[in-house]
Amino acid sequence: MNTISKDQLRSYINNVVYLTEEQIALVLSFFKPSRHLKYEVLVEIGRVNQFMNFIDRGCVRFYFIREDGLDMTRNIAFENEFATGLASFISGEPSMEALQTLEETNLLRISRQDFYYLLNVIPAWEKFFRNYLEYAYMNNLKIYQREIMKDASARYKELLRFNPKVIQRLSNKIVASFLNMSPETLSRLKSKADL
Amino acid sequence: MNTISKDQLRSYINNVVYLTEEQIALVLSFFKPSRHLKYEVLVEIGRVNQFMNFIDRGCVRFYFIREDGLDMTRNIAFENEFATGLASFISGEPSMEALQTLEETNLLRISRQDFYYLLNVIPAWEKFFRNYLEYAYMNNLKIYQREIMKDASARYKELLRFNPKVIQRLSNKIVASFLNMSPETLSRLKSKADL
Repeated sequence: MNTISKDQLRSYINNVVYLTEEQIALVLSFFKPSRHLKYEVLVEIGRVNQFMNFIDRGCVRFYFIREDGLDMTRNIAFENEFATGLASFISGEPSMEALQTLEETNLLRISRQDFYYLLNVIPAWEKFFRNYLEYAYMNNLKIYQREIMKDASARYKELLRFNPKVIQRLSNKIVASFLNMSPETLSRLKSKADL
Repeated sequence: MNTISKDQLRSYINNVVYLTEEQIALVLSFFKPSRHLKYEVLVEIGRVNQFMNFIDRGCVRFYFIREDGLDMTRNIAFENEFATGLASFISGEPSMEALQTLEETNLLRISRQDFYYLLNVIPAWEKFFRNYLEYAYMNNLKIYQREIMKDASARYKELLRFNPKVIQRLSNKIVASFLNMSPETLSRLKSKADL
């Protein structure tokens, strides 16, 4: 009942870095299955994020909460992607952002302690982490650039092109928060696009 | 005339990772001195960034240019820091952002090719790069959060607390662009702070 196949994770890792069979078995042994309901909060703001998460099935969003209570969605990740509050995971400091499932979600998670242990015992694991950090850095920069540079309509079109799953699978409220626009603006853009 | 001491860079690296004398000598041999005037553009938007830069002396800013021509300063780095258009350096794709000196600046630069060569021949160099990426990721997330979450006055106060050199050394025009506010708003906040 609590088993989640590690095949997807194994392929993901094999695509990034060459590990021996023994090494990949060790790595996978540290990833533990974890099942979550829709809208479960995985990391609260102000708590240290103790896990790196691979999404086997489902969806996770990353968000900040503004002083006026409005939440601002920074990122959304789906199955076959990692989803980790990385700043807190790296630094061990309380997280500035929260992580929450948006669907029923199955994760494979490795603890900070086990992850850093692997960095010590498997030198090639450094390359995996480098790849992770490189991707996370570039993704963040794109999010920042979108936020700073583009108007509502351009942000919507870009999302439709590069990550249509967000629009197809998630509620208007979440999509609007991700695009930093009101749900009304989003509805207007959507109906325009349908013409 | 074209010599720039590598002592500062050597200490920086030694603080991050343990390398043998032979390894550090090899690493340093790939960093070449490069002198730049005030306001020189080091990386243009749309060009691939070929160098990782260590600032021995001076100051470098990172900026995007909006469609309306306004430039948006994302980051500013000073002496004894690295300053690299990292997304383009990693991906080999054209840079979305530009880098420009804001003072007379002495750099020590390593080419992409030499940097990735070092990753192959010195396994410990992976740890240096990991540390670089971790710092860059966390710095970016802070910049994003500041932009999304804080009003003008809070952004100014935060900068004054964490990076006062920006306000002390640079023009109001640059500081305003970094804080994403008009120069008039910045002047008002500065004169308030003087009271």
